[in-house]
Amino acid sequence: MDFPKALKLAELAEMLNCEFRGDAEHLTYGFNEIHRVRPGDLVFVDHPKYYATALQSNATTVIINQEVEVPAGKGLLISSDPFRDFNLLTRKFFPFSASNNMIDPSAEIGENTIIQPGVFIGPGVKIGKNCLIHSNVSIYHNCEIGDNVIIHANTVIGSDAFYYKKRPETFEALLSGGIVKIEDDVQIGASCTLDRGVSAVTHIGKGTRIDNSVHIGHDTIIGKKCLFASQVGIAGCSTIEDEVTLWGQVGVSSNITIGTKAVVLAQSGVSKSLAGGKTYFGYPAEEARKKYREMASIRLLPQIIERIELNED
Amino acid sequence: MDFPKALKLAELAEMLNCEFRGDAEHLTYGFNEIHRVRPGDLVFVDHPKYYATALQSNATTVIINQEVEVPAGKGLLISSDPFRDFNLLTRKFFPFSASNNMIDPSAEIGENTIIQPGVFIGPGVKIGKNCLIHSNVSIYHNCEIGDNVIIHANTVIGSDAFYYKKRPETFEALLSGGIVKIEDDVQIGASCTLDRGVSAVTHIGKGTRIDNSVHIGHDTIIGKKCLFASQVGIAGCSTIEDEVTLWGQVGVSSNITIGTKAVVLAQSGVSKSLAGGKTYFGYPAEEARKKYREMASIRLLPQIIERIELNED
Amino acid sequence: MDFPKALKLAELAEMLNCEFRGDAEHLTYGFNEIHRVRPGDLVFVDHPKYYATALQSNATTVIINQEVEVPAGKGLLISSDPFRDFNLLTRKFFPFSASNNMIDPSAEIGENTIIQPGVFIGPGVKIGKNCLIHSNVSIYHNCEIGDNVIIHANTVIGSDAFYYKKRPETFEALLSGGIVKIEDDVQIGASCTLDRGVSAVTHIGKGTRIDNSVHIGHDTIIGKKCLFASQVGIAGCSTIEDEVTLWGQVGVSSNITIGTKAVVLAQSGVSKSLAGGKTYFGYPAEEARKKYREMASIRLLPQIIERIELNED
Repeated sequence: MDFPKALKLAELAEMLNCEFRGDAEHLTYGFNEIHRVRPGDLVFVDHPKYYATALQSNATTVIINQEVEVPAGKGLLISSDPFRDFNLLTRKFFPFSASNNMIDPSAEIGENTIIQPGVFIGPGVKIGKNCLIHSNVSIYHNCEIGDNVIIHANTVIGSDAFYYKKRPETFEALLSGGIVKIEDDVQIGASCTLDRGVSAVTHIGKGTRIDNSVHIGHDTIIGKKCLFASQVGIAGCSTIEDEVTLWGQVGVSSNITIGTKAVVLAQSGVSKSLAGGKTYFGYPAEEARKKYREMASIRLLPQIIERIELNED
Repeated sequence: MDFPKALKLAELAEMLNCEFRGDAEHLTYGFNEIHRVRPGDLVFVDHPKYYATALQSNATTVIINQEVEVPAGKGLLISSDPFRDFNLLTRKFFPFSASNNMIDPSAEIGENTIIQPGVFIGPGVKIGKNCLIHSNVSIYHNCEIGDNVIIHANTVIGSDAFYYKKRPETFEALLSGGIVKIEDDVQIGASCTLDRGVSAVTHIGKGTRIDNSVHIGHDTIIGKKCLFASQVGIAGCSTIEDEVTLWGQVGVSSNITIGTKAVVLAQSGVSKSLAGGKTYFGYPAEEARKKYREMASIRLLPQIIERIELNED
Repeated sequence: MDFPKALKLAELAEMLNCEFRGDAEHLTYGFNEIHRVRPGDLVFVDHPKYYATALQSNATTVIINQEVEVPAGKGLLISSDPFRDFNLLTRKFFPFSASNNMIDPSAEIGENTIIQPGVFIGPGVKIGKNCLIHSNVSIYHNCEIGDNVIIHANTVIGSDAFYYKKRPETFEALLSGGIVKIEDDVQIGASCTLDRGVSAVTHIGKGTRIDNSVHIGHDTIIGKKCLFASQVGIAGCSTIEDEVTLWGQVGVSSNITIGTKAVVLAQSGVSKSLAGGKTYFGYPAEEARKKYREMASIRLLPQIIERIELNED
């Protein structure tokens, strides 16, 4: 997410009440997840295991809980608690915004778009032309929906990420400052849940079709013309490329990529990245033909057991 | 679904701007899915693989993209795009109907039925006597609900089918002209989704009990006194006969039949038809005792591996 | 659940139009499930298989369909149909209560709590301070929510149990007279469903975090600081102790216990109780390292088959 305006390193340090290392005039344009970071962005890192990744990333500015050498062209914010301070920026620039109206007056709704009764549309939401939003849908603040989009009843767009840091006393939420962005010509079924990004955009590509009760996690990027059958669940920060088909009740882990035109058969569990253009099955999901062979060999087990015992006698 | 009145073959041809083969006075009474077609119905077929099925079916009238011999007693409509023309009939006779009211004035609601706050009831909906519809339920246009039915909060009745034709540029939806019909004495949990039929009825038989977050696809027929535990998903055009029990998170494919009094254990995946009266388990679901034996033999694998190595030495 | 006041055995017998065995002045304070029963409670039993369990339980009063010796300190109600008579008590003391308002005037809502548009809050509901209840949430009558609780859009709190007795003509529901109680600092995702207890409390412990589309059954007790990922389903009457982690799409059967700090990996099915402090996987869920070894040995099957055939020649 981009900040409302570029911020100087010294300004950021003052906001966070921390010290900075680097040029006081060094500019930061927004913040992002480490997996999605682009030049101009700020990220945070609070564990030595990830210091190198953060410092060598595209990030322009890093909130870090350790004095380290300043990488060329970067600025550092030295914080006793980078997670807390990242949340502080979210709270300042991308706060939750309550509404007293079913359709907030600040929402923009395009022409010929039909909003059925009982729909909640939060502050700052943008909906394009020729859309049909069915009854009792909830669209949280600032989410963006293109043209010719259909969303079926009771679906939720823009709920918070399920992203927590274990503290001694509690699980502290990484606040969700991002949005959900749905491109043109997307159709989404009933009772789906699409979480907003924590610091970026949960993105649904043009022409994708999503069946009922599908869950899509924060900051996940879905390509164009994908097909997801009912009760699919996709965790956060994953990338599903174009024209991927996921059949019913498939589960997909976080931080992985499924390549273009991959097909994942029903009830499979995808726990690591999958190359495009192939068909997968099982848990963990593997190429279907390999899995079928494995299933066929399991069917031979009673014979194998018998054979071995025969050998024995 | 039955058309508002019987239509002559010549009338239909004029509506669709196509030619007809057969008697101009030949009457068609409604349309249907190829799996549900009854005499008097129209179906469409656009792939040579299915021509014979359509032409030999109970259908009285067939929209087809090929000149073929007219079967006895049938009428043909010769279309360059039968899928498009079938949608044209849906749009004409069974269009989506928007509403400006939470409870549309055209809805009929029986005596002693309680409608809790936040419920959306679309145009033409019929609800019987002594029902209890909990808060934030969405019931789409023209769906029918019998007497003594309980529907828990945030459930969706009548959302569109997940049924698309792959076009070069998009997935084109087969429009959903059907309805959901729920018989007397049914109880449905919270956050379920029951899709309407595309050209027929998604049907829930008398006395069936459905737990929370269950998905039922378009044109699926559920028998009497079934029990579906939470998070079950049933795809479109399937038939679940009477007194079938599906335990939690079971998935059922499209176009299959599960026989009377079958029991499918939790998390199983049903990918082909199952005979009644037995208990099934696993993916693909097989008779449970066979599956248990398979699981027991898998547990012996370490011993098998050891034994073989011993033989080797 | 506690009755509004203690009831004498003779009073209960008159209400239920049945005979009693024991002291007419014997007091009963409430009713409960057999798995949750405490001294002072009434339970019912209608199957000889469970007579001993009920009569030897902590229950103070038992509705039973058989003349038996009165256990010391207990009272018996001799009923031709204990299930029906238990429901009669539920209907009398803990009835469903309809509302004409989105927020019932009898609901108590603490200071600084934000209720977004479209939320239904039933009669007798109590919500604490500093909560955020997102749009189109449904909270049934009498449920209790602590302080600092976040509930995301379209979630349902307090729907009825999925609990039926098979009668010759129908599945008769055991009525849900219990509630859902959510402790302080809990966060619940979008489109979840938490069923109320039938005669006790479905309880969510302090600081627990629940992702989207999670189902929690009646009378289930969830400990403190648990983490449940999306699409988890937990059946009724189970106990999940503190700091348990369930990953996406895990299913948990009824009447089992998962011990403190257990971790259950994605898509696993838990069909029997699990000790705390370990990591589990698969269906049925077993210790993950054992399961991984099993999966590795399945991968060796093609080699095993080859080896055995070599032996044969």
